[in-house]
Amino acid sequence: MILEALVTTLSGNGALNIAPMGPEVDGLDPDRFVLKPFRTSQTFRNLVETRQGVLHVTDDVLLLARAAVGSVDDAPTRPAEVVEGRILLSASRWYEFRVIEIDDSSDRTRMEATTVARGRGVDLFGLNRAQHAVVEAAIAATRLGLLPLEQVLERYREWAVLVEKTGGPRERAAFAILEGFVTDRGSERRSTSS
Amino acid sequence: MILEALVTTLSGNGALNIAPMGPEVDGLDPDRFVLKPFRTSQTFRNLVETRQGVLHVTDDVLLLARAAVGSVDDAPTRPAEVVEGRILLSASRWYEFRVIEIDDSSDRTRMEATTVARGRGVDLFGLNRAQHAVVEAAIAATRLGLLPLEQVLERYREWAVLVEKTGGPRERAAFAILEGFVTDRGSERRSTSS
Repeated sequence: MILEALVTTLSGNGALNIAPMGPEVDGLDPDRFVLKPFRTSQTFRNLVETRQGVLHVTDDVLLLARAAVGSVDDAPTRPAEVVEGRILLSASRWYEFRVIEIDDSSDRTRMEATTVARGRGVDLFGLNRAQHAVVEAAIAATRLGLLPLEQVLERYREWAVLVEKTGGPRERAAFAILEGFVTDRGSERRSTSS
Repeated sequence: MILEALVTTLSGNGALNIAPMGPEVDGLDPDRFVLKPFRTSQTFRNLVETRQGVLHVTDDVLLLARAAVGSVDDAPTRPAEVVEGRILLSASRWYEFRVIEIDDSSDRTRMEATTVARGRGVDLFGLNRAQHAVVEAAIAATRLGLLPLEQVLERYREWAVLVEKTGGPRERAAFAILEGFVTDRGSERRSTSS
């Protein structure tokens, strides 16, 4: 199964990177998993350099949305226990990992990772339509160039209703950030094409 | 926030009913919450009669899908500890509750519930696009009369891709049940109107 997760890595000089990622994860407490960062991503560069990081199971969709459309440097973290890395305090479970194999033959790379330490924090809320509207909206925001803008905006209008009806403050804040991002890009694209 | 949950209740003669429900739940470990069963539902009738049941936080989308489109009598359960009721074994957290106030002035009723016992089982997987495609598909299946069939089928084609790409066997089985249900109803409706 694909988990919509957050991965933290450090660059060689110790700068923290927080990235949304969809690793292949089997079971609820994986000893191994496969990360698939794009070759152009900071996560890829960091993992090639350091071969370690932390995978987080989380429903902090505000952090996920912020990390999807920009870089986040104010998320509360604490040091990892075994690897050189940082644990996100809002995570529900986390897996400190080492990368044991890298296949970078395509742009979407494959990195086999093995869990070397794990822990748990706050509970996940449970199935919630607003959280998933935010996940879908974040994914659409990062693929703006690939989808017709009008189609994306139409979906945003539907997701807005779900977020309003079923979400809490965190979901609403997350969605507002994504809406702002998509609207800005939309007007940029319109002014470029005019 | 609205939790997409499963609620178990017993009728006066002890028959188990399992129903998907979207209660208003604040926080991760609620002492109170609001259930909103339709007045025509078995859950409503049972709660009026017995005033007790069990709310489950779960990502068992197969059980959710089955309960959305039919009645389920083979889900593994065990007796609740405080109320007269049953706990679903696949749940991640559960809240045994008593109903303290009922407002049935509209078709969608409001029942204030207070938690009288709680427990926890298996972990939730975490954010997963397939699980939420199933949740949306289950909700659409129960609203077939209210939405244009072609629009529902179009969404089902999109959800099918997400389920295939990001889900596991449980998500695929759940989605197949919902697809079958919607396709059957669709052809019924077509043959009725022809």
